[in-house]
Amino acid sequence: MLTSKVIEQLVGALGKEKVFTDKEDLAAYSFDATADMPKVVPEVVVTPTSTREAQEIVKLAAQHKVPLYTRGSGTNLSGGTIPINKGIVMVMVKMNKILEVDAENLTATVQPGVIIQDLNDAVAGHGLIYPPDPGTIATATMGGSVAECSGGLRGLKYGVTKDYVMGLEVILANGKIMHCGGKTVKNVTAYDMVKLFVGSEGTLGVITEIIVKLIPAPEARKSALAIFRSLDDAAKAITGIINNKVIPATLEIMDNVTIKTVENYAHVGLPTDAEAILLIEVDGIPEVVEKEAEAVIKVCKENNGQLKIAQTAAERDEIWQARRDALPALAQLSPTTVLEDATVPRSKIPEMLKALRDIAQKYQLTIGTFGHAGDGNLHPSIITDETDIEEMKRVHQAVDDIFAVALELGGTLSGEHGIGIAKQKYLEQEFGEAGIEALRAIKRALDPENLLNPGKIVQP
Amino acid sequence: MLTSKVIEQLVGALGKEKVFTDKEDLAAYSFDATADMPKVVPEVVVTPTSTREAQEIVKLAAQHKVPLYTRGSGTNLSGGTIPINKGIVMVMVKMNKILEVDAENLTATVQPGVIIQDLNDAVAGHGLIYPPDPGTIATATMGGSVAECSGGLRGLKYGVTKDYVMGLEVILANGKIMHCGGKTVKNVTAYDMVKLFVGSEGTLGVITEIIVKLIPAPEARKSALAIFRSLDDAAKAITGIINNKVIPATLEIMDNVTIKTVENYAHVGLPTDAEAILLIEVDGIPEVVEKEAEAVIKVCKENNGQLKIAQTAAERDEIWQARRDALPALAQLSPTTVLEDATVPRSKIPEMLKALRDIAQKYQLTIGTFGHAGDGNLHPSIITDETDIEEMKRVHQAVDDIFAVALELGGTLSGEHGIGIAKQKYLEQEFGEAGIEALRAIKRALDPENLLNPGKIVQP
Repeated sequence: MLTSKVIEQLVGALGKEKVFTDKEDLAAYSFDATADMPKVVPEVVVTPTSTREAQEIVKLAAQHKVPLYTRGSGTNLSGGTIPINKGIVMVMVKMNKILEVDAENLTATVQPGVIIQDLNDAVAGHGLIYPPDPGTIATATMGGSVAECSGGLRGLKYGVTKDYVMGLEVILANGKIMHCGGKTVKNVTAYDMVKLFVGSEGTLGVITEIIVKLIPAPEARKSALAIFRSLDDAAKAITGIINNKVIPATLEIMDNVTIKTVENYAHVGLPTDAEAILLIEVDGIPEVVEKEAEAVIKVCKENNGQLKIAQTAAERDEIWQARRDALPALAQLSPTTVLEDATVPRSKIPEMLKALRDIAQKYQLTIGTFGHAGDGNLHPSIITDETDIEEMKRVHQAVDDIFAVALELGGTLSGEHGIGIAKQKYLEQEFGEAGIEALRAIKRALDPENLLNPGKIVQP
Repeated sequence: MLTSKVIEQLVGALGKEKVFTDKEDLAAYSFDATADMPKVVPEVVVTPTSTREAQEIVKLAAQHKVPLYTRGSGTNLSGGTIPINKGIVMVMVKMNKILEVDAENLTATVQPGVIIQDLNDAVAGHGLIYPPDPGTIATATMGGSVAECSGGLRGLKYGVTKDYVMGLEVILANGKIMHCGGKTVKNVTAYDMVKLFVGSEGTLGVITEIIVKLIPAPEARKSALAIFRSLDDAAKAITGIINNKVIPATLEIMDNVTIKTVENYAHVGLPTDAEAILLIEVDGIPEVVEKEAEAVIKVCKENNGQLKIAQTAAERDEIWQARRDALPALAQLSPTTVLEDATVPRSKIPEMLKALRDIAQKYQLTIGTFGHAGDGNLHPSIITDETDIEEMKRVHQAVDDIFAVALELGGTLSGEHGIGIAKQKYLEQEFGEAGIEALRAIKRALDPENLLNPGKIVQP
């Protein structure tokens, strides 16, 4: 329980305009973008504007042993920012400066509150991009994205957040500041603390500065939509493309439930009787794009795919709008969308899709599946209603089954959403008892008092 | 001190043909490829042939609190495998099976004793490559390479070992086995234990199985050698190439000392009056290679570079032979070569090269510098004689200066060789006190009795 003395000290350190204790203010930080999660109201919300202020807050939390929940825009999908032990919520959105764009070394240095899209806008003039592109690119912060290790549509070719974070400034649980990594492409000095902090969901330290790698923007790109009557054909096309040594920038799939829902929602002319559609984009220098597009078209045709190739920017936008509509379309069917990100090796996608269909039937649920087919990262989305207690019981059983199948197929619990509180109960199925003990040891080592985002990933 | 009881138990677990205690056998494991290091003879050497046997060894080491030094071919360059506290040396070279090549998922699963080149040979038939290519590719093991996070000549475009390790089986210090990661391209389930173990130099656990990512082999490649009369011109060419959005597979530099030495050693026709040469290779599909080669040629010419472009495979081999000769040529000048791998942001290469020249002059030493210019990872090599106490004093002062300058320029102590015992004394200069404490906490968390490769990286 947080005392009034702590609040006084926070006000002393930050000024009262950065310390919030009104009920309405606190309520806004009791949840995040994750469905089917508990809502917990914090005791105080603070908005530091500098590393020094953030450090003062961490020190006060450590001194008074108060839980500290650091967050950005709260777009995560694993309950990662919910302050389940109450205490302090520290919102980083006001630390939002792009400190440097270093075009010569292909790096940018940002504060954690910078919105991902804003970074991309800032580097576009140099002909550069920051590739990680989660669906929430226009609202998610860099800090949250690094803490969660966001993925996105371009993961197959370009990798995910961890592949782009080169250096970090971190406030440790004891209030001390650590710098790790930097602007060098290669760095093997001691343990890879940068990679340990990326995806650690705020449980090991507070990220206050981030150096990321940038890459040259692709000169050209080409998008296509391929319609398949059979799931098997779609799956064969996916592996066929990769086997032809083409790594598309994006290779997305939508199943029949998702296709029908998107068409009903947006009327973009999708064939509602198709078993699956693939949305594919290749990019690079124009010669490569032509050659790779030809290979993609050939493979899709060989597997009975019917193709629509975008000839104009407007047609390209239309294809990708259909993909962007997938989640909102599914979401408007019912009050609650339970969105998972179980991930399997690419070759196991047909088996995973069939298993998802069986699970939907077994528990009499509507599951729409879409996602990143190229990297085996599917998003089965259960359309339900949180207030329907009986149905939610079936939803939870279905989720249990989904993760069991993903692990059985050599997959993982999370391709890009993290563990948070949503997937904790499955963690031992993937890591085993010895692995869990190792994770707990790491948490205890860096946060011995369990003050940083406590209750997430593992209990120390 | 290891008792005869431990040796008896090792023999009981492994059979006597896998346990070595003869003086000559032990002496062979008292050193590694690193110059200017202490030699320490272990008390027993064991060669497990399975994970189960390796696990028995770890359990015995834990039970009797005996230091355990796990190693492969010992090609590392930071004293990483020297058994400085004596105890057991566990040699993994007999666990050398390639367990699976999964061309569909672009992965291979190997035991730690597999030689890197053997893996490449095994996947070549599938049109695939495993990109990390340290100079010791024909002798180094995958286990050692993962433990050290090897780099190589292709790091700029293709990254280093950590970018290719997807999953690990690890025996923890308590003898329990942990599996982390797997065959999925994306995985954000809990802390990134895979990346934590890559580059941890055997101090956190024993790697017994490795899943790596493979990529399609480039269809074509083109090599060129560019000769520069001025270091500044060479440096401008390096950044000019990258600024032209060309990321060569390889972009190497050799300074005048190295050029003269290689020419004297191999008589390959290098211009001994050049200040620097760049060795450049672009690869990819033929159309890209042509386009990128043109850009490289243009940039080199604009910066007064004189070009030799390989027109045949033999001419290509000649160019790269010159680079491969750099270290042996420098090494034969004198009994001892102290080879460093201080790394700076790419834009700081000219300053670093000038600083190296000043340091050589200040301490009246011969320093030949070559290395991976594209990623700022230089290899200043001090030509000396370990038995010359007076000169070695100057060598150590020069090394101190080299690391100080690298860090001042925003660089790092190690781009690809690791810390081991060779660079421990500089670690706090890079990580700071808070960082060192965090590294020590990680070590204590996973190896509380300090039994795994004790004395390396940090003291717990």
